[in-house]
Amino acid sequence: MPEAGAATEPAGRESFGSRLGRAMADRGPLCVGIDPHPSLLQRWGLADDAAGLERFSLTVLEAVGSLAAAVKPQVALYERHGSAGIAVLERTLAAAADASVLSIADAKRGDIGSTMAAYADAWLRDGSALAADSVTLSPYLGFESLRPALDLAAQSGRGVFVLALTSNPEGASVQHAGGADSVARRVVQAAAVENRRYFGGPGVAEAAPGPHGSAGHGSVEHGTVEHGTVELGSVGLVVGATVGSALSDLGLDLAAVRGPILAPGLGAQGATAADLRRTFGSAYGQVLGTSSRDILGAGPRIQALHDAARRTLDELRAA
Amino acid sequence: MPEAGAATEPAGRESFGSRLGRAMADRGPLCVGIDPHPSLLQRWGLADDAAGLERFSLTVLEAVGSLAAAVKPQVALYERHGSAGIAVLERTLAAAADASVLSIADAKRGDIGSTMAAYADAWLRDGSALAADSVTLSPYLGFESLRPALDLAAQSGRGVFVLALTSNPEGASVQHAGGADSVARRVVQAAAVENRRYFGGPGVAEAAPGPHGSAGHGSVEHGTVEHGTVELGSVGLVVGATVGSALSDLGLDLAAVRGPILAPGLGAQGATAADLRRTFGSAYGQVLGTSSRDILGAGPRIQALHDAARRTLDELRAA
Repeated sequence: MPEAGAATEPAGRESFGSRLGRAMADRGPLCVGIDPHPSLLQRWGLADDAAGLERFSLTVLEAVGSLAAAVKPQVALYERHGSAGIAVLERTLAAAADASVLSIADAKRGDIGSTMAAYADAWLRDGSALAADSVTLSPYLGFESLRPALDLAAQSGRGVFVLALTSNPEGASVQHAGGADSVARRVVQAAAVENRRYFGGPGVAEAAPGPHGSAGHGSVEHGTVEHGTVELGSVGLVVGATVGSALSDLGLDLAAVRGPILAPGLGAQGATAADLRRTFGSAYGQVLGTSSRDILGAGPRIQALHDAARRTLDELRAA
Repeated sequence: MPEAGAATEPAGRESFGSRLGRAMADRGPLCVGIDPHPSLLQRWGLADDAAGLERFSLTVLEAVGSLAAAVKPQVALYERHGSAGIAVLERTLAAAADASVLSIADAKRGDIGSTMAAYADAWLRDGSALAADSVTLSPYLGFESLRPALDLAAQSGRGVFVLALTSNPEGASVQHAGGADSVARRVVQAAAVENRRYFGGPGVAEAAPGPHGSAGHGSVEHGTVEHGTVELGSVGLVVGATVGSALSDLGLDLAAVRGPILAPGLGAQGATAADLRRTFGSAYGQVLGTSSRDILGAGPRIQALHDAARRTLDELRAA
């Protein structure tokens, strides 16, 4: 007889939300971007080729793999090198798994129907060469068009981060459209519905932590903002660290999403940990602060990279 | 001394819009999708692996490479197989170039800043392993976030197709948002501005065809709908073949875009050539009708594929 919860979680793997929540509680809420930009490769004395990418990626993993809750390889920077770059990404994702650090493939994929299913297959299926713990998705074709990835993630104990609200000035032309019923708000609400479904539907207070996700006791305290006290769903959002007042201007209730918030923009892009705290307010406990160039610029020495990540993490924990 | 137009077009390569416009005039307005779906591979008696993908892709190219104006490999279906699949895609794109048929990498990529530049590098740069004649892009982060790809495409004689309006029911939640100033409308207007820039800015009637894009004589007749009579810009849009009345409901002026319209949805997805003509009206001359499964389902025999493509093409020309 199958165990409770077996329909949505494979034997041996907890939900992504549970795994990420525990990593954030144990290690702190830091995600380190693995961004082998041509300029960083040069600064590290590496060639802008597959061998340089691999050296870069494995160095970052060695430096921060035991410190960060997650690492986020930027897929575009591997794709630049075609199949040879994608092969390095495969090895990087495998190395992250070996190092027991969660991976977020920053791919921003999005399509419909069987094509979306193929992207889900690529990034979220057991046995796929590119399988990651989670992948970022883009909802221009509608949040619901991402269904094949949402479903496969739930089945395979993996997660997704859906683009919601970004801080680049051009983003508002799409994300703010619709006024009180903005595009960003619709995405946030859809993610909330999705996680609520996982937690047992409206009216069920909360799922218990642990591998089988059975409905449990207790209640989500939206006012609680310490990392590790909020049980997370597996459908996350990408919300820029420097979105400022747009969250409240657009009436986005991120706490109600009950999923992780990937917040790129720490450091080089201008946000401090204190800014994150201020911007995300009662949802700060869900926020996974993401830093790339600020930390990566400290390389290529392992110790220097580790120290830079440690400083960022300390700031995030202190905020 | 550099020739006129050298700043935006590399020696020896016309703009993508000119090349595509000529192919549509010479061959007719058909794009054949190269979609190695697992179900099609099985139907063709091929394994769902890299070898199967390659056999499938090269068979389609052999069957339609001299008939279609363009072929459109669906990147997700190669990505499913990781780096081995991407290597097949590289060979497929190279084979399309050898066969002198234009390629549209259906990747729907989108990001910001230097990450977007990396995607542009992957798909639109001379010498990149994945270089295609054009790539599809997704504008959730704002049309203007695609700037690195728009600029590199213009410099390298390549093109882009930006997602604007799709016919999947979930798409409206994003694309229709904003009422009279909808997201889809903003994308359409931005593409129009982009092509106008290429043609010489507002007030300049039309660029002459040919490799150097110098401003020429004549005027665009928006009422003219025969393929081959409209000079095309290199910034195209993706608009579903089955969007029905949404084009007029949202007030989208596709004729003013003066770029190619990639219209997936012919055949298996429900649109006939006559539907396309009705839906796109005065912009029909810009429309590149795209069929995938309807044609691919006729395989694996080369002659049967060729005949199926020929039938679709005849319908498009007759419409």
